[in-house]
Amino acid sequence: MMTTSRQIQLAARPVGQPTEASFRLATTEVPELAEGEVLVRNLWMSVDPYMRGRMNDTPSYIPAFQVGAALEGGAVGEVVLSRATTHQVGDHVLHMQGWRDYAVGPAKSFRTVDVSQVAASAYLGVLGMPGMTAWSGLVKVAAMQPGETVFVSGAAGAVGSLVGQLAALRGGRALGSAGTPDKVAWLREIGFAAAFDYHDGVLPQLRAAAPDGIDVYFENVGGEHLEAAIEVLNLHGRIAVCGLISSYNATTPPAGPRNFRQVISKRLRIEGFLASDQAQHQAEFLAEVGPALASGSIQARETIVEGLENAPSAFIGLLSGANTGKMLVRI
Amino acid sequence: MMTTSRQIQLAARPVGQPTEASFRLATTEVPELAEGEVLVRNLWMSVDPYMRGRMNDTPSYIPAFQVGAALEGGAVGEVVLSRATTHQVGDHVLHMQGWRDYAVGPAKSFRTVDVSQVAASAYLGVLGMPGMTAWSGLVKVAAMQPGETVFVSGAAGAVGSLVGQLAALRGGRALGSAGTPDKVAWLREIGFAAAFDYHDGVLPQLRAAAPDGIDVYFENVGGEHLEAAIEVLNLHGRIAVCGLISSYNATTPPAGPRNFRQVISKRLRIEGFLASDQAQHQAEFLAEVGPALASGSIQARETIVEGLENAPSAFIGLLSGANTGKMLVRI
Repeated sequence: MMTTSRQIQLAARPVGQPTEASFRLATTEVPELAEGEVLVRNLWMSVDPYMRGRMNDTPSYIPAFQVGAALEGGAVGEVVLSRATTHQVGDHVLHMQGWRDYAVGPAKSFRTVDVSQVAASAYLGVLGMPGMTAWSGLVKVAAMQPGETVFVSGAAGAVGSLVGQLAALRGGRALGSAGTPDKVAWLREIGFAAAFDYHDGVLPQLRAAAPDGIDVYFENVGGEHLEAAIEVLNLHGRIAVCGLISSYNATTPPAGPRNFRQVISKRLRIEGFLASDQAQHQAEFLAEVGPALASGSIQARETIVEGLENAPSAFIGLLSGANTGKMLVRI
Repeated sequence: MMTTSRQIQLAARPVGQPTEASFRLATTEVPELAEGEVLVRNLWMSVDPYMRGRMNDTPSYIPAFQVGAALEGGAVGEVVLSRATTHQVGDHVLHMQGWRDYAVGPAKSFRTVDVSQVAASAYLGVLGMPGMTAWSGLVKVAAMQPGETVFVSGAAGAVGSLVGQLAALRGGRALGSAGTPDKVAWLREIGFAAAFDYHDGVLPQLRAAAPDGIDVYFENVGGEHLEAAIEVLNLHGRIAVCGLISSYNATTPPAGPRNFRQVISKRLRIEGFLASDQAQHQAEFLAEVGPALASGSIQARETIVEGLENAPSAFIGLLSGANTGKMLVRI
């Protein structure tokens, strides 16, 4: 029996904002399994901001996507055929062959996950890369301490919403910015002490929310947000630089913060990081976030787009803030 | 007997580049000593880039200078009258009442220094605040390791020239930028593996000097230097932010680096610091730099301006790079 699989390919490298024309839906034949391989039907795929960088042909920490080839990214699926003793038909697996109906490869590229306690999609969000990003940025990079004030930009996203909740659970005061009134209201519901819509200006609202300044800035956005955070940071403040989504579609590099000199006067530490560098802390992360999720003390919201064919619009929407919480595509 | 003392006062806050009109030479009467006080005749005073910030009326880590009052800063002098048991006439002391002929105050504000082994002026340079700045920035902030490549901007200054020499002594490769051919030649003499004149462009020369990239950037200058350093930094590179002299006379805040996003892709750490925060490492600093200076393995050059009345021009010159090594005024 021949199986066909749809996949989303990169049709052309986007210049500025990606459009539907940047993507192409193609149908390919799934190859026969070799010994040691598995065939996986994808159930969920992730779209993440970092994928925008992979669409450019510039050197980075991860290879660029190739024009005419399928995109890649986190996905969860179910094993439907196995020629590996390690994987059974019916197993749920986490892997990097998203953007397609079926994935094939060596069994070791597919990590089995337990879906008896948590939804499969959680492994793409709060228990997966975005969760690890939030936790390690706050705990290991920013070294947040109880009693500190933590400002998170892009706070209604998969990463930001977890950062704020963790900061509150760890005895801090979480402040967040987001792009719609609904998102702002949700942030207040889930434990942010204050939240505001950045369209109304970042610095005045941040000053009002943080009369005693902030100690940690969790950076997801860049631009005006970064400058405002530097302005309001206290002595020995830390900036964990996770993302700069405001610039990902920029065609000319944006200028950095004009108040950079405060890095000296306030002795600030600014540190970029990737969750993938923090693998040694994986168990510690799961030990904190897993039970908090199970007990309901952490909320993990999802925005779900239906159908592989709509993955490009899900991704385009992600870059303009169409999601609240984790943006997912159900395949 | 009434003693008079000349002092340099801030006549007006400079807007942009300070000029002679920013300063005023005044003569005042030295007050009678109270019990526990000393009278010190100043021999040397320091001019340092950080003083430019104190001439602005903006909040910072150190109070602004007051218009109409004497400036302050590091100085070394000789006790000429003492009403304190801790200080004898003839003692050499380090203190913060520079910019004047005589200093008066409680004895505890005047730290006695040993001038039997090193010149008194060394306590304003290589064994003083600039030395501690260089050492702590390289060793404690940037955490430089043997085998690493260290780029220093403003490398012919009091701080930069020591950073490069320490980096080389610690088994690293030091690269430096400076503003004249003479300075560049001197850097090569004292152990920099490569040095260049920044007027000929920073990035191309830095790339040529560092084909394998740099691991540490010791930032004294800002602007084009910072952007070039970010471009050439390796994964997990560190920037110790000591100074941003290129912007100190700016009347509008300059934009930050346009390639700031590399902070994430390269997982860079950028950290501002002041030597005054590093006091707990003072003994470790002296244990390394003192013997290296005495043995001649570290060169500490000085640019000496004669006469208190010329201190303003020494300071103005410092901001435009008129000095090689430590800029001092002999009073």
